Amino acid sequence: MNILTRPILEINWNNLLDNYFTLQKIAPNSFAAAVVKDEAYSLGACQTVKLLYEKANCRNFFVAHGIEGERIRPYAPEANIFVLQGIGDDSLECFKNAHLIPVIGSLEMLHFWQKNRIDSIHPMINVETGLNRLGFRECELKQLTADDKKEFSWVMSHLACGDEKDHFMNEHQLNTLKHIKNTYFPHLPVSLSASDGTFLGSEFQFDMVRLGAALYGINTAPYRENQMKNVVTVKAPVLQIASLPKGDFVGYSATYRAHTDKKIAIVSIGYGDGMPRSLSNVGKVFFPQDDKIYEARILGRLSMDNIICDVTDIPHLEFGTMAYLLADFYTLDDMARDAGTISYEILSRIGITNRYIRKDIF
Amino acid sequence: MNILTRPILEINWNNLLDNYFTLQKIAPNSFAAAVVKDEAYSLGACQTVKLLYEKANCRNFFVAHGIEGERIRPYAPEANIFVLQGIGDDSLECFKNAHLIPVIGSLEMLHFWQKNRIDSIHPMINVETGLNRLGFRECELKQLTADDKKEFSWVMSHLACGDEKDHFMNEHQLNTLKHIKNTYFPHLPVSLSASDGTFLGSEFQFDMVRLGAALYGINTAPYRENQMKNVVTVKAPVLQIASLPKGDFVGYSATYRAHTDKKIAIVSIGYGDGMPRSLSNVGKVFFPQDDKIYEARILGRLSMDNIICDVTDIPHLEFGTMAYLLADFYTLDDMARDAGTISYEILSRIGITNRYIRKDIF
Repeated sequence: MNILTRPILEINWNNLLDNYFTLQKIAPNSFAAAVVKDEAYSLGACQTVKLLYEKANCRNFFVAHGIEGERIRPYAPEANIFVLQGIGDDSLECFKNAHLIPVIGSLEMLHFWQKNRIDSIHPMINVETGLNRLGFRECELKQLTADDKKEFSWVMSHLACGDEKDHFMNEHQLNTLKHIKNTYFPHLPVSLSASDGTFLGSEFQFDMVRLGAALYGINTAPYRENQMKNVVTVKAPVLQIASLPKGDFVGYSATYRAHTDKKIAIVSIGYGDGMPRSLSNVGKVFFPQDDKIYEARILGRLSMDNIICDVTDIPHLEFGTMAYLLADFYTLDDMARDAGTISYEILSRIGITNRYIRKDIF
Repeated sequence: MNILTRPILEINWNNLLDNYFTLQKIAPNSFAAAVVKDEAYSLGACQTVKLLYEKANCRNFFVAHGIEGERIRPYAPEANIFVLQGIGDDSLECFKNAHLIPVIGSLEMLHFWQKNRIDSIHPMINVETGLNRLGFRECELKQLTADDKKEFSWVMSHLACGDEKDHFMNEHQLNTLKHIKNTYFPHLPVSLSASDGTFLGSEFQFDMVRLGAALYGINTAPYRENQMKNVVTVKAPVLQIASLPKGDFVGYSATYRAHTDKKIAIVSIGYGDGMPRSLSNVGKVFFPQDDKIYEARILGRLSMDNIICDVTDIPHLEFGTMAYLLADFYTLDDMARDAGTISYEILSRIGITNRYIRKDIF
């Protein structure tokens, strides 16, 4: 057996591509834009953009910052790249060099834009409909002159509760957006929904949907089975198997104590590799063997580089056996549930560390 | 005013260097090794190593993985580089190329080493004294032959509760380690303590202390005021100031509702920049003005790129004002307390994202 000491991150790009096509079918009358901010939720923005641009003809991308847009431009020469956090002195050059489209969410930023306008670029306007994050409030919209309004090429907003099918906010935001569009921008195309809103039906899809989380396999419609394919698998080697005698403690601050004799495995992955420390004493690690998947409970606190788990009842384990942390059978959503957070937060930490052995599956 | 859209990460390398000297004085009879695994807790391993090697004559470094050791070797040509997770097929070449010293924690890994021995390298042995993580258990030590024992140049162990001055585990682990050293390795030098154990007094310091967290400003002796200087400052621009009318909700899943009219600021930083999402509805953001530091409570959930906070009572705010997330007056330890985790986990996520404007202070 090949003995490893580092964890492995496998990214299934076929599944990511399939997810894109599935989402496209759910919103057949809208442009399917890909949200690749934060390094495509850490998986690698350039690689994601190249794939979707070449294999799926995706021509609209969203990033958070100008610098993120400039990085992906070489992989999407003809695409629209929208920048959600807008434009400032720190990103002006990025916008010029890479011909990026700012999303403008306030009068102040609009004035900044008007002082620094770039030829042939027409910003998107972000309007606030209930999230109370970035976006023009109606009192600001009322101050726009006819010329101000002509600056814009698109109207967007963003749902607060799109992952809850019957939440009253969805209807409220939809109606508010329709009112704003009809009152201020009757001739502009509209984008409201991210992945979650896309599943709420055609009413919510408008002219463009912005696909992030679901593309990467996350279930953004958690009121039903996930329709997305899993993209991320994480494994790590068992570096040691040892007896844990009754009465002994495990890990920092001795937060776990064995009440019977046990067998433990030390797995070479930790919060330094993006595993959430809140899995301490509650998370699980898996060992697929023959046709069975054995579950090993995490004991004590995660440390930066190691996780200790209870393998008392798991038969065939040895130095170098791979433990599964994330897989088809235990997804980011499952881990998030155990860790008390959302899968987006976990995913955004995994791919950016440089300690994984990375395997790209095509 | 210069309008920014990206957050700023300031690293005070002078303070890091001062922390090293302070720790060295606390353990004057031990080698002061620097722990630079996980990219020096995300701040940048190469930069940290170069600084400590050149300005502080540091000649011992610890990393977790072989590949991390290989990356820092050019900056510490004459140093000992110890690799805590040991050696495997995936790191053999790193050990050979960069002349790294494996830390060996089990009989199985020892056998792997003996099949793949590298000339003139003498491993460190890790012995288990109570943490129940990687390390030889005494039943394994008994199986070592005289020749096996000659492989090693150092003995190490690791404390479970070194940050709690009077925890019974400290004494227990100290005595166990002394027993093991005297019984099996009477002639070898010993390393027990990381930063936390270094503060427990000379008994715990042995021949080498392994300084990680404290170097980066974390208080590893939290039963008294921090003696370390702050290394990390994080700021982010306010992209919008808006009214939040009574009855309105804030952020995803509408987890905050305003019971009076308020003023909010949207700050351009989120969990995609390593801010813990568990600060939702409990964390704080700060605005230093004149001689006062105003505190703004975080409202609703953090999103990937934005934090919304209550600025109702803060006088001078405008588009572009910088909010402070981490500073001398609100350190990693303070944020960890609010976020329900440890400062190590937060720090390990900040520096590795490529969205910050990074400022190195010398």
